[in-house]
Amino acid sequence: MTQKSDAVVLLSGGLDSATVLAVAKDQGFTCHALSFDYGQRHRLELEAAKAVGKALGVVTHVILPLDLRLIGGSALTSEIDVPKDRNDQEMESGIPVTYVPARNTVFLAIALGMAETIGAFDLFIGVNAVDYSGYPDCRPEFIEQFERLANLATKAGVEGTGGFRVHTPLIEMTKGEIIQRGIDLGVDYGLTLSCYDPQTDATPCGHCDSCQLRARGFAAAGLVDPALRRRST
Amino acid sequence: MTQKSDAVVLLSGGLDSATVLAVAKDQGFTCHALSFDYGQRHRLELEAAKAVGKALGVVTHVILPLDLRLIGGSALTSEIDVPKDRNDQEMESGIPVTYVPARNTVFLAIALGMAETIGAFDLFIGVNAVDYSGYPDCRPEFIEQFERLANLATKAGVEGTGGFRVHTPLIEMTKGEIIQRGIDLGVDYGLTLSCYDPQTDATPCGHCDSCQLRARGFAAAGLVDPALRRRST
Repeated sequence: MTQKSDAVVLLSGGLDSATVLAVAKDQGFTCHALSFDYGQRHRLELEAAKAVGKALGVVTHVILPLDLRLIGGSALTSEIDVPKDRNDQEMESGIPVTYVPARNTVFLAIALGMAETIGAFDLFIGVNAVDYSGYPDCRPEFIEQFERLANLATKAGVEGTGGFRVHTPLIEMTKGEIIQRGIDLGVDYGLTLSCYDPQTDATPCGHCDSCQLRARGFAAAGLVDPALRRRST
Repeated sequence: MTQKSDAVVLLSGGLDSATVLAVAKDQGFTCHALSFDYGQRHRLELEAAKAVGKALGVVTHVILPLDLRLIGGSALTSEIDVPKDRNDQEMESGIPVTYVPARNTVFLAIALGMAETIGAFDLFIGVNAVDYSGYPDCRPEFIEQFERLANLATKAGVEGTGGFRVHTPLIEMTKGEIIQRGIDLGVDYGLTLSCYDPQTDATPCGHCDSCQLRARGFAAAGLVDPALRRRST
């Protein structure tokens, strides 16, 4: 890529979106990060998002307050307990209570508005269809449909001045592969926070689905999670 | 309809969405209103939305703060001047600066999350493809695409427990027809506020595109706008 294009990257502060940001940067995009303060009980991830964005050199980082608690419906935003220590069968059976209704639709829609404003046509999101916890809005068919919508929804789409693309570089990767890719690109996973229910000092619980998937990913990649190493020293 | 179904109705406080709410109610739906405090300079419309929702008997009314100013890009949310006294040719040429990037995509996405949370499958939005000011996200093809997306994006869509429908009862109506329909259903348009740039006492400017379209609508319906009558007494 000779001239750098702008891209909007959804950045949660977790492992996946940190990797996505590194991939977007590696592909030559000038990256604008977008995070949401959506009433998540694991709000500490926003501090992680800031650190990750800074480390990977984003040119802007918008953190948008969006209180999804007002519409309710998820263990991540309400008083429903985050499930812990689920076995494989439990984790693979259906959509868990941590599902936030229409979350990726909402996040991508706002990313689209931001992209249109800054003249970007590339959106990056860290969805994953392999170790994905069963969320419907992480599937390839959802992403493709959103891309079609984006090109109908916008001034740029109507005027034919550009086609929006939703990049999902992790969609077919296992957690282990994602981690290996990020390590190759120099991501410091010690800055990231994946836990759905961390302690106030950001120590992960180690038992929620997200912690379990992360631990297995590092094990599969044959690596030690630097977030754990940092906290044990 | 024997058993009343729930519906989420996007309610801005303007003339169109008030009519949509009356139509949804007339069709037998139990209505849940959703409004956005999105940093619009015509924030007074939220007071109008509350009054309209109350008058038409919504069972819940969520007003969600969502500061789209953080992503910029529109005369409705930034310091760009709202255009005034435009003639027909100007109003019909292209997409105006009052276009908010991806606004209906964002609003429908959040309405979808709210619907999924309360177990509703019907969304109502007052888009209009006739007197529509040229917004890309008011077109029928956009709405159809969003409906397809909704059924891929959600737990309910994946589990096959219901199909989402996006109702656009006004989409093919002129402003005059919309007003006549609302009058027939008992809508008090004196409660609504359409102006993009009202005075602090909610007096409409009379010159923005929205005021002009409203005035023509009442003229076409052969009626006096009760919002004007109220203010002149």
